[in-house]
Amino acid sequence: MGGMSTEPDYSQGAAYVRGRYVPIGEAAIPLTDWGFLRSDATYDVVTVWEGAFFRLDAHLERFLASCARFRLDAGRPAAQIAGILEQCVRLSGLRNAYVEMIVTRGQPPWGSRDPRQAANQFYAFAVPYVWIANEAQRAQGLHLVVSDVQRIPAQSVDPRAKNYHWNDLTMGLLGALDAGGDTVVLTDGAGHVVEGPGFNVFCVNAQGTVVTPAHGVLEGITRRTVLEMAQALGLPLQVRDLPAAELRAAREVFLSTSGGGVLPVTRVDGQPVGDGAVGPVVRQLVQTYWDWHRDPRLSRPVNYETSDGGSVA
Amino acid sequence: MGGMSTEPDYSQGAAYVRGRYVPIGEAAIPLTDWGFLRSDATYDVVTVWEGAFFRLDAHLERFLASCARFRLDAGRPAAQIAGILEQCVRLSGLRNAYVEMIVTRGQPPWGSRDPRQAANQFYAFAVPYVWIANEAQRAQGLHLVVSDVQRIPAQSVDPRAKNYHWNDLTMGLLGALDAGGDTVVLTDGAGHVVEGPGFNVFCVNAQGTVVTPAHGVLEGITRRTVLEMAQALGLPLQVRDLPAAELRAAREVFLSTSGGGVLPVTRVDGQPVGDGAVGPVVRQLVQTYWDWHRDPRLSRPVNYETSDGGSVA
Repeated sequence: MGGMSTEPDYSQGAAYVRGRYVPIGEAAIPLTDWGFLRSDATYDVVTVWEGAFFRLDAHLERFLASCARFRLDAGRPAAQIAGILEQCVRLSGLRNAYVEMIVTRGQPPWGSRDPRQAANQFYAFAVPYVWIANEAQRAQGLHLVVSDVQRIPAQSVDPRAKNYHWNDLTMGLLGALDAGGDTVVLTDGAGHVVEGPGFNVFCVNAQGTVVTPAHGVLEGITRRTVLEMAQALGLPLQVRDLPAAELRAAREVFLSTSGGGVLPVTRVDGQPVGDGAVGPVVRQLVQTYWDWHRDPRLSRPVNYETSDGGSVA
Repeated sequence: MGGMSTEPDYSQGAAYVRGRYVPIGEAAIPLTDWGFLRSDATYDVVTVWEGAFFRLDAHLERFLASCARFRLDAGRPAAQIAGILEQCVRLSGLRNAYVEMIVTRGQPPWGSRDPRQAANQFYAFAVPYVWIANEAQRAQGLHLVVSDVQRIPAQSVDPRAKNYHWNDLTMGLLGALDAGGDTVVLTDGAGHVVEGPGFNVFCVNAQGTVVTPAHGVLEGITRRTVLEMAQALGLPLQVRDLPAAELRAAREVFLSTSGGGVLPVTRVDGQPVGDGAVGPVVRQLVQTYWDWHRDPRLSRPVNYETSDGGSVA
């Protein structure tokens, strides 16, 4: 091509698609990949904040566990996946990034319907950091709606293995948005809240105990970080069923997510949580969450230089 | 391009992707479409047999009902969708085809997580006819395994709106294949069978009544065809809960699917159904199913000629 070639523009994000790095706008998956046609896939999301991955090892470990659970093969060890993720971030030049790794079933040979015969496919991408709550919502707190839609139960799909089965979350979210809420938490059919679209839910109940659901939820890495922070801060903590009534009567409510860390909720179903302002426990956890990003045991700087010493950003 | 252009090869199938017709091997969906990343999509499948669509109107009607249920917009009326499907078949030249239409959520503007702000996307493709059972299985009958995996319940995802939430079906299928079965039927957690990967299930019970589950299943068009055939043939018929024990004790068992019509099952969980041979009711229904393909009230010939009179096939 010579002088005709144009430098690809990775500024909106970069992806790794079946062996090639491409700008995010060109990243695509075959229409016939069962990852789409059967949502037969697993994934994980790790963030980059101020130029460093946060808890990358924990995300890689969970990703490979999710793959094993669904009998999907990432085709490469954790270290190699980490290298691909880093290259996506490096190409994008993003200092704050949302980085997703995916394995899909791919397709079996034509005529076969045996998932065991499919060639699994690995994808990854880095895009600008995704916030589940915007700046005003982070300052004033979100309005959370408790939905009648039931989260897909563990007897059907293992919620501990991260998956794209989000129709229940999407339909619940649409109902919550229509009702004037900002986001939604689903229930389990027995009056307990479980999880929302991309986050776990916590409360500081009327007794001052931090409570989060034990069952029917993704064991989020940010959820784990909150549990560890609560222990480090000496906060009373219970991981058990969380009745919707207890959430509604709580002093404080918050979400945990890779899409923003600890996010305050100040209204539930139209009623203020406590006095309706962001509470002291949530403020402490938000501060601690971002402080921990500077802990070298949890943080791994991205090398933005290419192997030949030049910067690609 | 002039003389440099190469004719696209549609012989393996043709797709319609966001306004363009492409060979199936080039058909792709953006990695960032929520149709993939949240399995936020609906679809339908219609077949072409011996050059004619079978029950196209019924499939289009259900497809638009599925779209409405999930608040997805196909962006075009049924007649226009039919025209796109026909063009996919025409380009492929296939006389027997499996034709799929899809609407995905697409993506909302960057930063938004509101599904209502997304630009929904329409996709379609035609590929060679897909058989859920191969020729030997159609002659001798399938070995069906009843799985402990529970089908995603209707309280979580409406099974009447066709969707790609198949992890339960896939994990059940893997278990069934490992156990030496050919395919799987899931249960509802209360001892009833519901549906399998791409099909509804029926039995002719010990009393000679045709029974198929009423709840927790896709209201398949082929299922409807079986119900209509049973009425036309004067077979006793019940649409109600179907206990797994009744299935195991049945005289005959069969599946209904766009992927082959009426398919015999001659073993359930390793035990023969009846005398282990394909039974008389199944034979009669298979014959009737293919006979009905010649009924002009149900069948609509594909026009394989282009509008300018030339053939593209």
